[in-house]
Amino acid sequence: MEYIFLNNLDEIKGINAPKSPLGFSKMVKLCESAEMLFDKKGFFQTSIADICRAAHTAVGTFYIYFQDKTAIYNYLVRNYYVVIKRHLNENIAGLKTRLEIECAGLRAFIRFGHTHPQCYKIIWGSSYISPDLFENYYTDFAKSYVRALDKTPEQIIDVDYSTAAFFLMGIANFICLKTIFNKSPLPESKLDEIIADTRKILTEGLFKRKEK
Amino acid sequence: MEYIFLNNLDEIKGINAPKSPLGFSKMVKLCESAEMLFDKKGFFQTSIADICRAAHTAVGTFYIYFQDKTAIYNYLVRNYYVVIKRHLNENIAGLKTRLEIECAGLRAFIRFGHTHPQCYKIIWGSSYISPDLFENYYTDFAKSYVRALDKTPEQIIDVDYSTAAFFLMGIANFICLKTIFNKSPLPESKLDEIIADTRKILTEGLFKRKEK
Repeated sequence: MEYIFLNNLDEIKGINAPKSPLGFSKMVKLCESAEMLFDKKGFFQTSIADICRAAHTAVGTFYIYFQDKTAIYNYLVRNYYVVIKRHLNENIAGLKTRLEIECAGLRAFIRFGHTHPQCYKIIWGSSYISPDLFENYYTDFAKSYVRALDKTPEQIIDVDYSTAAFFLMGIANFICLKTIFNKSPLPESKLDEIIADTRKILTEGLFKRKEK
Repeated sequence: MEYIFLNNLDEIKGINAPKSPLGFSKMVKLCESAEMLFDKKGFFQTSIADICRAAHTAVGTFYIYFQDKTAIYNYLVRNYYVVIKRHLNENIAGLKTRLEIECAGLRAFIRFGHTHPQCYKIIWGSSYISPDLFENYYTDFAKSYVRALDKTPEQIIDVDYSTAAFFLMGIANFICLKTIFNKSPLPESKLDEIIADTRKILTEGLFKRKEK
């Protein structure tokens, strides 16, 4: 996973932002170990000592950046948010219609989740470990979705955009889960089929119209 | 939560099915305490001793039915599956078209989730605590969804039904989350609006058609 030096790092509960690139690289080493161990052993079974051992870092270094184990978890969740958003933005750049944007975004999201299946454990696991963070994750995502939909009302039918945002997030998250459960590589041709079906439902609706 | 004496209780890993109604009532008392504590304190912070104390039950009784803490968790997840399925089936009974069934099912699901928000922690938390169970939960749900869609191909557009199943599960799960994040009661009128919007997207598609 790529870790990003967030501008508002200090705003994440329990984080002391590093002051230098060297400091950030130490923080990243700890994050890599934490993410690997949380995925493999689970959050609660992993100790700060385990994280430091895997990162070849002194325990004292951990506490320079993170107040406790929950703080590093909070950073991982927030980092996913930023990395996923950026990945989506890169993949929709230059696209014109909302439909094109939705399909390209869905494709990028599924590819990301299929490549990084541990993100579900980290993000959905936060419903237990850091409930506020879990809620903020999806409400922030929904807000930015609503802002995006607000820009093209002429292309979208007359529904509540917040409902539409959760509708679209739900589709992306669950269809991506389906590809992960398949436990096999996801060739482009298979992804094409999934996107084509989803596009069809999003444009035509799921139900056949009655013949007139 | 209502706990159901599942026919295949013995098939759940780590469970010894009670032999009598009295045994089942003891098991249920333990489940009620476990569910309350898992929600409040989290799975890992709750001990078997805590569960037994809250249930006013001897620790020995716990081990008659459950091999360990994961076993009682496994039962809670499976019980949710059965309770939610039954709740949905009751609410779609007698409905004729797939569209009517989807809308009534969605309404029932959102009402259930809004009333029992802890089900997200329990079910999604299983991605950490019991990954196979998490996967089975949604793949089983999807399979039964596909079987249902298979019965009315004349009503549904030509897409892969497994993709459609995950599409529909995603919508239900995420729109329900939206109502939980609102942290307020969910009057019927508000639920009506949400269902009407979702119905509209599912029948018309999300995107306006180009004028011809």
